[in-house]
Amino acid sequence: MTDSIYIGLRTVEWKDNSTVMIDQTKLPNELVYVKYTNYLDVANAIRNLVVRGAPAIGVSGAFGLALAALQSTATIKEQLISDLEKAKKILSETRPTAVNLMWGLEQIMIVAKKSIGSVTEIKESIIQTAKQMAEDDIKINMKMGKNGSVLFDNNDTIMTHCNAGSLATVAYGTALGVIRATKDSGKSIKVIATETRPVQQGSRLTAFELHHDGIDVSLIPDTAVGYTMANKLITKVIVGADRILRTGHVYNKIGTYQVALMAKQHGIPFYVAAPLSTFDMKSNPQDVIIEQRKGTEVTQIGDKKTAPDGIKVINPAFDITPPELISGIITEAGVAKPPFEESIKKLFQAKK
Amino acid sequence: MTDSIYIGLRTVEWKDNSTVMIDQTKLPNELVYVKYTNYLDVANAIRNLVVRGAPAIGVSGAFGLALAALQSTATIKEQLISDLEKAKKILSETRPTAVNLMWGLEQIMIVAKKSIGSVTEIKESIIQTAKQMAEDDIKINMKMGKNGSVLFDNNDTIMTHCNAGSLATVAYGTALGVIRATKDSGKSIKVIATETRPVQQGSRLTAFELHHDGIDVSLIPDTAVGYTMANKLITKVIVGADRILRTGHVYNKIGTYQVALMAKQHGIPFYVAAPLSTFDMKSNPQDVIIEQRKGTEVTQIGDKKTAPDGIKVINPAFDITPPELISGIITEAGVAKPPFEESIKKLFQAKK
Repeated sequence: MTDSIYIGLRTVEWKDNSTVMIDQTKLPNELVYVKYTNYLDVANAIRNLVVRGAPAIGVSGAFGLALAALQSTATIKEQLISDLEKAKKILSETRPTAVNLMWGLEQIMIVAKKSIGSVTEIKESIIQTAKQMAEDDIKINMKMGKNGSVLFDNNDTIMTHCNAGSLATVAYGTALGVIRATKDSGKSIKVIATETRPVQQGSRLTAFELHHDGIDVSLIPDTAVGYTMANKLITKVIVGADRILRTGHVYNKIGTYQVALMAKQHGIPFYVAAPLSTFDMKSNPQDVIIEQRKGTEVTQIGDKKTAPDGIKVINPAFDITPPELISGIITEAGVAKPPFEESIKKLFQAKK
Repeated sequence: MTDSIYIGLRTVEWKDNSTVMIDQTKLPNELVYVKYTNYLDVANAIRNLVVRGAPAIGVSGAFGLALAALQSTATIKEQLISDLEKAKKILSETRPTAVNLMWGLEQIMIVAKKSIGSVTEIKESIIQTAKQMAEDDIKINMKMGKNGSVLFDNNDTIMTHCNAGSLATVAYGTALGVIRATKDSGKSIKVIATETRPVQQGSRLTAFELHHDGIDVSLIPDTAVGYTMANKLITKVIVGADRILRTGHVYNKIGTYQVALMAKQHGIPFYVAAPLSTFDMKSNPQDVIIEQRKGTEVTQIGDKKTAPDGIKVINPAFDITPPELISGIITEAGVAKPPFEESIKKLFQAKK
């Protein structure tokens, strides 16, 4: 039995020798599950954002390779490896900058190469490994949720930005996992989700998945963060992270920095939830380049233009929240508190 | 010659016994002027947001009454006044909470009632009064622009939020009027406009009108305010106001407060530009009720849904920027600086 104990939304799953995903391009209007038996379809799904979110696409890549193994007509191991290498190349090129995708594909290749036995047995090992990666992702999120839930109180109203939820992971989520665990611990909580322009992950995904799970959620435009804080409608903030440095600098969705800055001004605790795999213990803040995305994300919505032709746009994907604005960083290995340089190091030492 | 010396966009104008307006519902995709000779069409235009912005709809109301006067078949003054009262009722009900609209209509009724002479002569007085109100609006904005321009330096990059521009007034604008005057004084400046969700006045109107006038403007999502400030891309901020209290508390478009708070944190001067007619010298901060607008402004864009059905929304139209975040308030009578309670009082005394 590899089924997770979490019975909420499952973003990506292995079922009857196929990969089943929520088609996130259809959200929030329709909850549609798509089923793939061909790895090329999984590659297209990753490319076209049917699935998104670093942990979710890492596991999707692994499932894609498992499908490639099943599709292979190889009779000897070398031939199977060759087929897998070909599939790996296609899958890895779908989102070339996604670290988790490369990691997911590598895990499968390592298992394939070191497996002994018949081709059928190797294929079985690959499938089991991919399924285990999915389960591990959920387990890490649930551990993180439990570690974080003690920081939240009964009757808290928690603001979150972007989507660090089920839909960014295999299931349960990071920041939203902490919210789920807090609710499951018996505390009554409410959530305020920011819309998160320009891509609107807050309204399309976070509002959708919390509403789906029966968690009390209200949506606000990003311009109303200050208003809700000044009017004491928020008691805590929690967000996810795309990268965390050893200094405690957090790279996350554009707008995170200003939510943190305003939380500090209003005396509201600001938490970050992310697995240890999100930490980059080598880079310094000045080393990390912020991805600038295309202007059409801001100048049009769907096909509808909302800005004049030819207008210049500044559209950074991420911003940096400095450690002095952060009350705690929640991981599966425990909660790091300031000063972060020391506390983060301790989390990694404890893991060893 | 009552034509203004400003030759940029003219939001509303009296021309050949008709009212000509920019149809703002077509912006930013098309710059379309509509021409009305029937006051009922002007009423519909105000109701349907063809024209919006407090000073602009005040003058539009006056133009509507001038059309009603021209349409009247009255042969005696009493009959003309009766026709005007009927038109005034219809026009005033288009945007019942708009103070400027009622003010514009009242100005015309006062002139109509006190005029002596033939019905034709009274009609002419009404038209001249309405035209003068439009010219006065532009003159006030240009005076404000001149007063404000000295606060801005060569090579400034100025952030603005929402639309306090030509398109909210008869022409030239308040905050954007100061930007125009600064540029016209020979200083080289750039503007960064926030999108201003949910109604997107920043991308639809501000970006449009500055781009139209050849002013260097870049658009950002509201989530990138902190990023642009932290990266030193902004040197000053200027916004308009919907209401200013004698204490210096500024009511303006949702999101203004957080821009001001972040500007303070980054040591960036934050200015407000508004005519003296925007000041409410009687109310206290706790007296003013913030209008809550319908959730569909946040949950859908045009017909496209961007949030799940049934989601709760918090959508305040305005927020309050406290005086301690404001570097100066620019008016046609001069610039008020902290402490505002004294400096605002002096502006009004100087006016008398």
